[in-house]
Amino acid sequence: MPSYTAPIQDMQFILHNLLDVSAQDIPGYADLETDFTSAVMEEAGKLARDVLAPLNAVGDTVGCRLENGVVRTPPGFKEAYAQLCDGGWTGLDCDPAYGGQGLPYVMQTAVGEMFSAANMSFQVYNGLTHGAVSAINVHATDAQKATYLPNMISGKWSGTMNLTEPHAGTDLGMMRTKAEPQADGSYRVTGQKIFISGGDQDLTENIIHLVLAKIPGGPADIKGVSLFIVPKFLVNADGSLGARNAVSVGKIEEKMGLHGNATCVLNYDGAVGYLLGQEHKGMRAMFTMMNEARLSVGLQGYAQADVAYQNAVAYANDRLQGRDVTGAKNPEGPADPIIVHPDIRRNLMDQKSFVEGARALTFWGAHLIDRAHRLDDKAADGLISLLIPVIKGFLTDKGFDSAIAAQQVFGGHGYIEEWGMSQYARDARIAMIYEGANGVQALDLVGRKLALDGGKHVMGFFEMVKAFIKENEGHADLKSGFLDPLKAASKDVQAAAMYFMQEGVKSPNNALAGSYDFMHMMGHACLGLMWARMARAAYGALESGAADRAFYETKIATGRYYMARQMPATALHLARITTGAAPVMALEAANF
Amino acid sequence: MPSYTAPIQDMQFILHNLLDVSAQDIPGYADLETDFTSAVMEEAGKLARDVLAPLNAVGDTVGCRLENGVVRTPPGFKEAYAQLCDGGWTGLDCDPAYGGQGLPYVMQTAVGEMFSAANMSFQVYNGLTHGAVSAINVHATDAQKATYLPNMISGKWSGTMNLTEPHAGTDLGMMRTKAEPQADGSYRVTGQKIFISGGDQDLTENIIHLVLAKIPGGPADIKGVSLFIVPKFLVNADGSLGARNAVSVGKIEEKMGLHGNATCVLNYDGAVGYLLGQEHKGMRAMFTMMNEARLSVGLQGYAQADVAYQNAVAYANDRLQGRDVTGAKNPEGPADPIIVHPDIRRNLMDQKSFVEGARALTFWGAHLIDRAHRLDDKAADGLISLLIPVIKGFLTDKGFDSAIAAQQVFGGHGYIEEWGMSQYARDARIAMIYEGANGVQALDLVGRKLALDGGKHVMGFFEMVKAFIKENEGHADLKSGFLDPLKAASKDVQAAAMYFMQEGVKSPNNALAGSYDFMHMMGHACLGLMWARMARAAYGALESGAADRAFYETKIATGRYYMARQMPATALHLARITTGAAPVMALEAANF
Repeated sequence: MPSYTAPIQDMQFILHNLLDVSAQDIPGYADLETDFTSAVMEEAGKLARDVLAPLNAVGDTVGCRLENGVVRTPPGFKEAYAQLCDGGWTGLDCDPAYGGQGLPYVMQTAVGEMFSAANMSFQVYNGLTHGAVSAINVHATDAQKATYLPNMISGKWSGTMNLTEPHAGTDLGMMRTKAEPQADGSYRVTGQKIFISGGDQDLTENIIHLVLAKIPGGPADIKGVSLFIVPKFLVNADGSLGARNAVSVGKIEEKMGLHGNATCVLNYDGAVGYLLGQEHKGMRAMFTMMNEARLSVGLQGYAQADVAYQNAVAYANDRLQGRDVTGAKNPEGPADPIIVHPDIRRNLMDQKSFVEGARALTFWGAHLIDRAHRLDDKAADGLISLLIPVIKGFLTDKGFDSAIAAQQVFGGHGYIEEWGMSQYARDARIAMIYEGANGVQALDLVGRKLALDGGKHVMGFFEMVKAFIKENEGHADLKSGFLDPLKAASKDVQAAAMYFMQEGVKSPNNALAGSYDFMHMMGHACLGLMWARMARAAYGALESGAADRAFYETKIATGRYYMARQMPATALHLARITTGAAPVMALEAANF
Repeated sequence: MPSYTAPIQDMQFILHNLLDVSAQDIPGYADLETDFTSAVMEEAGKLARDVLAPLNAVGDTVGCRLENGVVRTPPGFKEAYAQLCDGGWTGLDCDPAYGGQGLPYVMQTAVGEMFSAANMSFQVYNGLTHGAVSAINVHATDAQKATYLPNMISGKWSGTMNLTEPHAGTDLGMMRTKAEPQADGSYRVTGQKIFISGGDQDLTENIIHLVLAKIPGGPADIKGVSLFIVPKFLVNADGSLGARNAVSVGKIEEKMGLHGNATCVLNYDGAVGYLLGQEHKGMRAMFTMMNEARLSVGLQGYAQADVAYQNAVAYANDRLQGRDVTGAKNPEGPADPIIVHPDIRRNLMDQKSFVEGARALTFWGAHLIDRAHRLDDKAADGLISLLIPVIKGFLTDKGFDSAIAAQQVFGGHGYIEEWGMSQYARDARIAMIYEGANGVQALDLVGRKLALDGGKHVMGFFEMVKAFIKENEGHADLKSGFLDPLKAASKDVQAAAMYFMQEGVKSPNNALAGSYDFMHMMGHACLGLMWARMARAAYGALESGAADRAFYETKIATGRYYMARQMPATALHLARITTGAAPVMALEAANF
């Protein structure tokens, strides 16, 4: 019953009116003209709407099954995956030297949002392969690249990421999986990995597991971790598939959601592995792809919010219940559609203003990653490193809240699985947890990213906000509706950062106790900046007589809502932060 | 794996230190001495921990099945239900004239919290019966009472509430179910009802459905609705069971949670029904029990938060990951328990300070209901009518958020069903929806309760806060930690109420657009008042040299956390409210 329509007009607005992609001097960006990006997104949008979205409920209800040691994906996933491969979507932003399309990451992000919104479980299979391709691309030898990349980019093979063990999640230094060197230069990998998304499936001919493990004799902690390529089927010298490697599926986890993606326990029992990158530098290799991986999870958060929002709007226009207190809007009918009620509006505006702001932030983040990768722009790299925990943590927290809010619009029907709203909420829930739980994102932001390079990136962000305000304060509507709230929020965020600097030296807990609030206030500041930029672009379009005035006017009204009703949250977060560690740490552990 | 322990010490603190129950001149309260309430709660706590909690996961995973038209509850439910009946728990606060125990509602609330926390699906069967008993008790003829009450109070029969139809939820005036009068004074009821909790089950010998329906020829709208008793099996004159009535289960809904409770579509096909109360006064009869029904749903919200919190604390003490940045706390172990980390503390303190404040508010609410019912205290009745939408809406919203926060403590394990945290969140979700979705609670609060009796109850609430502050401001610790934040919050709430009065006359949407925020700020004010009262009681106990100082000190520290870190939210809600209807109503429906 639920459906999905790709928000192409909004994406085009962000790509062109906001980021002006085709005018950027980033390799590959010159091709991103309006017609081209539109054509790509139209095709992706059709696939999302017609192929992936109809499989979303099937994935949830049927889920994955383990049959004789092999995972069977839900009915239809295999055929849909084949269509994805045929269209070249699996290698959209990958290296053309290995068969990729070579498009910028910002386009991968736009298409990824559509696939993720339409069917998050399905898209996670692709997302993990994408991450593995990135890691191999940066750290592998030429021979390894030639062996693995073409088939992974074409989608014939997939990739997975193996980090977590039962007793070692956030604290990966405790991992026990070991990799013993062999005379031929390979390793034998032994240990148990858990929570492996797409750990097995029947979509691809082979699966290339990237596995973190310790080489005996190395450092006992995180510094002794190395990264290995462990194929499900060994690859012969001629590229054909050889023997089944000693990696097996222990079980598929029963999860709250994401049922269409097999989350596996994988047992490695002397499996043949090949070192990827340098010995003991496994974490560095993982960090290479962490920005993209975390951005794509932040994207999942608002993508689920978007599809949930779309269905909530449809329901609110359809469901007749009660009357508009200011006068019937559907006088011939038995009642008015519930979208007339102010509290339903409030709810839908919360969702809409979040989703559109989140999309702008994420696309901007992808654009910064393109600058960092394709231009080796250090400032862009520093800024995106600062923003990544915000994009991951804030957008998944708010994305989940937003999906819950969309479910609420349906009343009792929202709780019934048949209507589909529960699945959006349950699927969105995992994004707050995996790829570094959101508390860890907050710790990364406050404990590491704020002080990175002497605090230069966060100061750069504040300068950017200040410059934007200064540049545009002559525009009266922009000033009152956008710049003034942005200024107030930015002031709050700076006050919090100052508090951390001053009180954090007394005890780091004074900063860490406020880390989660800081992540959220920074999130509001980022969305505020995005809304101010979008509003400027929309006013510009209106002032230059653009067609489709309703689109730009709606954009401005939606932004004004966010600025008026969400941005004041920074003051609350600041009030919490400045209570310091004392109230947070007051109790003995035994008194909880 | 998850477990539940009844918070008896905290309940005793609320009953005796806060509400001083045995000193109240309410009929039945004199019996509520410390030893007695302790004994009742110890027994209930054992049942909750040892019988109901172990069945919680079974209820979730096995759920209910429809076999040949009859609902089968999950394995073990029937035996547990028999134990409940044997112990007299089904009639704890019911009329002794019909076999009840006659205890005050405040005790029913304490016990209900335990059963609900241990196994929400199970307790919903009892909760609905309790509501039906209340309605029959107030509105039925003596003959009807004699026929139904003894078996319902003993638990031999159950009760259900039938309001919703597919096209009529909040807007019950649109209902189509009809009740045609018969020559013998009975009615024939025909129509379809949906979302009927416990609509069928195999726990009881008979089910007494209370059904809202329209008598042909009456008013077409809500004023034409009457309430009917429709037994599953007709009752013979001698009290034995007769023919099966024409009510059948269409299906059991597949829901996000609450799987152990059968949510049924019920089809009435000329079923024999008996008028309960007066013709066309069905809604009035429903309203009789609405305060209790909604309070018990608010209770479900924080009860799920409590059991989730208890398990999160256990996990945080058990799970070793990372090191305390201020120095290792478990130096011999491979890592410290995660409870050392400030952000885990922040999360647990959020949960603990909410749950304990919510419990105090709910018990106080139950006490007000006792005053209203047993003393016919109009002021208490007015005050609880004002507070009910807050108790229902705020406590279920925050209770769900809190269960989600508890789930987050578990990291990846929180998403795996086996660990039980997902179920608490999924079960808690329904409490925001049923018994009037929370948006409807906000509407009830702002559109109806604020102005009730000329606004006297909300003014009474503000006066109560003011008087408490004045009375206690000589206590320096109480003043800085509790009274000052309470005063600031109360000022915000009053400013919002004033805004509604001034701007609501221009357009009711100026008030309704802020209704949800008002419900939340009122919730914080209520919890703030509870915490201030609890802190005074705890300081009092410490000053008078009470044993178990750690309990009272923990209580004060937990309260200080709530006051410092949650109460400032009222300013955010006020800022939103004073933006009025304009940003909320800015878009045409077509532009969402």
